[in-house]
Amino acid sequence: MTPSVPIPTIIDTNTFPAKPVQMDGVKGATIREVITARDGAPNFAMRVFEVEAGGHTPLHSHNYEHEVYILAGQGELHTAEGPKTFKAGDAILVPANAEHQFRTLGDEPMKFICLIPIEQNCAR
Amino acid sequence: MTPSVPIPTIIDTNTFPAKPVQMDGVKGATIREVITARDGAPNFAMRVFEVEAGGHTPLHSHNYEHEVYILAGQGELHTAEGPKTFKAGDAILVPANAEHQFRTLGDEPMKFICLIPIEQNCAR
Repeated sequence: MTPSVPIPTIIDTNTFPAKPVQMDGVKGATIREVITARDGAPNFAMRVFEVEAGGHTPLHSHNYEHEVYILAGQGELHTAEGPKTFKAGDAILVPANAEHQFRTLGDEPMKFICLIPIEQNCAR
Repeated sequence: MTPSVPIPTIIDTNTFPAKPVQMDGVKGATIREVITARDGAPNFAMRVFEVEAGGHTPLHSHNYEHEVYILAGQGELHTAEGPKTFKAGDAILVPANAEHQFRTLGDEPMKFICLIPIEQNCAR
């Protein structure tokens, strides 16, 4: 038997099926779980979120971090210190136990990547 | 003493200083280490790479994974199975020990996010 050689996987996130985020306190958000344990990812998972204009993720906190990159749009991040604005091209570290909510600003939808430790998933 | 409350950090990656990637086999690539252990990230680190037209990252492999999101441009990923093309909006899982090299295609620069386990950094 030939030992298998690990090969990179390329995922077209734009054709990947998006699912509505079903959590209390969410409005107009979808998720694509593009890299997860299912793909053999050992440590962290990548999700792509889209939030329609006027929409938001839940206001919550949990015992693990988010690492986020804003792909499109702009918004307001709810924090325990009050709101902070963000825009496309910003990276955001949400530490464990930090209260957070992503809200759109303006008339455009917002799109972002959000990575989490592999064993966690607050959006499932 | 009041216990400190964790607060999210927003990083403007476009004004974050880029450094040339200095590795054997690299051509025309810069790195921005936008979220690392320095920021208190516990599990994984986020870097933003830019590769000029005609440039590439090193052809190599290592014992940890990459999770990549292509922000702009298009390219060819060298794998042990041969080249695979990718474009903006694609996510890529490079498993541990998989040979890989990101090469630009066409006349445009390429920009991508690459996440790694926090204790690793092949570009330093």
